[in-house]
Amino acid sequence: MPRYKATIAYDGTDFFGWQVQPGKRTVQLELEAAVNKMAKNPAEPIRVQGSGRTDARVHAIGQVAHFDLPFNIPAEAVRKGLSTMLPYDIGIKDVEIVDDEFHAQYAAHDKTYRYRFSTTEFRDPFKRNYTGHWNRRLDTDLMQQAIGDYVGEHDWLSFVAAGFQQKTTVRTVYSAEMILKPEENEIWFEFSGNGFLYNQIRIMVGVLLEIGHGSRPVDDIKRLFEVKDRQEARFTAPAQGLYLVEVRY
Amino acid sequence: MPRYKATIAYDGTDFFGWQVQPGKRTVQLELEAAVNKMAKNPAEPIRVQGSGRTDARVHAIGQVAHFDLPFNIPAEAVRKGLSTMLPYDIGIKDVEIVDDEFHAQYAAHDKTYRYRFSTTEFRDPFKRNYTGHWNRRLDTDLMQQAIGDYVGEHDWLSFVAAGFQQKTTVRTVYSAEMILKPEENEIWFEFSGNGFLYNQIRIMVGVLLEIGHGSRPVDDIKRLFEVKDRQEARFTAPAQGLYLVEVRY
Repeated sequence: MPRYKATIAYDGTDFFGWQVQPGKRTVQLELEAAVNKMAKNPAEPIRVQGSGRTDARVHAIGQVAHFDLPFNIPAEAVRKGLSTMLPYDIGIKDVEIVDDEFHAQYAAHDKTYRYRFSTTEFRDPFKRNYTGHWNRRLDTDLMQQAIGDYVGEHDWLSFVAAGFQQKTTVRTVYSAEMILKPEENEIWFEFSGNGFLYNQIRIMVGVLLEIGHGSRPVDDIKRLFEVKDRQEARFTAPAQGLYLVEVRY
Repeated sequence: MPRYKATIAYDGTDFFGWQVQPGKRTVQLELEAAVNKMAKNPAEPIRVQGSGRTDARVHAIGQVAHFDLPFNIPAEAVRKGLSTMLPYDIGIKDVEIVDDEFHAQYAAHDKTYRYRFSTTEFRDPFKRNYTGHWNRRLDTDLMQQAIGDYVGEHDWLSFVAAGFQQKTTVRTVYSAEMILKPEENEIWFEFSGNGFLYNQIRIMVGVLLEIGHGSRPVDDIKRLFEVKDRQEARFTAPAQGLYLVEVRY
């Protein structure tokens, strides 16, 4: 039973997220269908374990998942085979054979997410599924000043949406960057950390935009860490701007 | 009854093309709904006249249309109003008040279309609705040599799909260019002309790719103009790579 690690890109537009849900089209569902077909539909269905969930409409450039096959197939043949069987909104970038102990979720050391915001008055129809949109006043100097406050180990209770299931809301953010893309009229945010809670990044982005807009003071992130209050998150940036970029092990 | 000229972008993915068709979601349908709403739904519905049709899944960066409103609204207010009412896959780039004689279709002097092909072995899920895909051998020198043969006044009967309704298949192509985009792993084709027939550009692109692949001789375009045979078009490049870029008057 060799174990395979796959690096996967998907356009989240037409998916109800990663996780299998009854009656919904999800990425995990499509992957499991393809993997089981490749394995000639064994009696005990093969499960595909991802590094973590992504929500409906959220994209991935480098999601990672593992699965076991009942017989040995070269990694490159698995990549090609799955690529042929999968719908075009899922792409397999890489497959490798890994140690039986490898686990896409538990072995993950850190993850990087990107959030793209377009800032033009004209709402580009080609970006509607791929960026958030903000056409109000924004002071990017204030945002640049504030974003560093996210770095470090914090209790993210003020940044989590209802419905989170984790026992602890303490997580560490290793880096937090704002990248201006003037040629594309976009602002990108990139966050790396050892784990992120439900909607955490979309709320982090929302807070930054509110700081840039002047509706929160520049040092409000520090206050949010102190108050630990889920009601404080007023604006959750929309799902379609979010990308899981990389999972490192 | 002032006449308005609108420049429109749309992501063709979720449309059955431009032209109103019973029971189908089309760009013209959405525009007419918004224009009539803005005009407070007059007894005689306002029609929106485009420069020409685009097929299902074909995109536009600069489609042009005209319509008349029963009362005078400043052009910029029309642009903003329509932008608010339209779904996000249609964007109004510009609106101006024009002479009553202006006609989006009949006054058009020339049109530019672009076709985007991605050439990577990995099928990028984010490009599935926005490019054609070709991952076979391609000699771009041969294509570069051949593409100039499209320029000029020709009878395009070998390049038209079944279902065309025009009386004559003679059209003039003013320019035909191939642009290599190595950083994006794409090949772009751009064609300007006084008018294009049903599927003409997609067939022109198909012929070029077959020349690049070696399955047609490099001088085959000249032969196709001579034989005037619709059966000769073997490969029609898929709709989602095609963009109406500009209409000039």
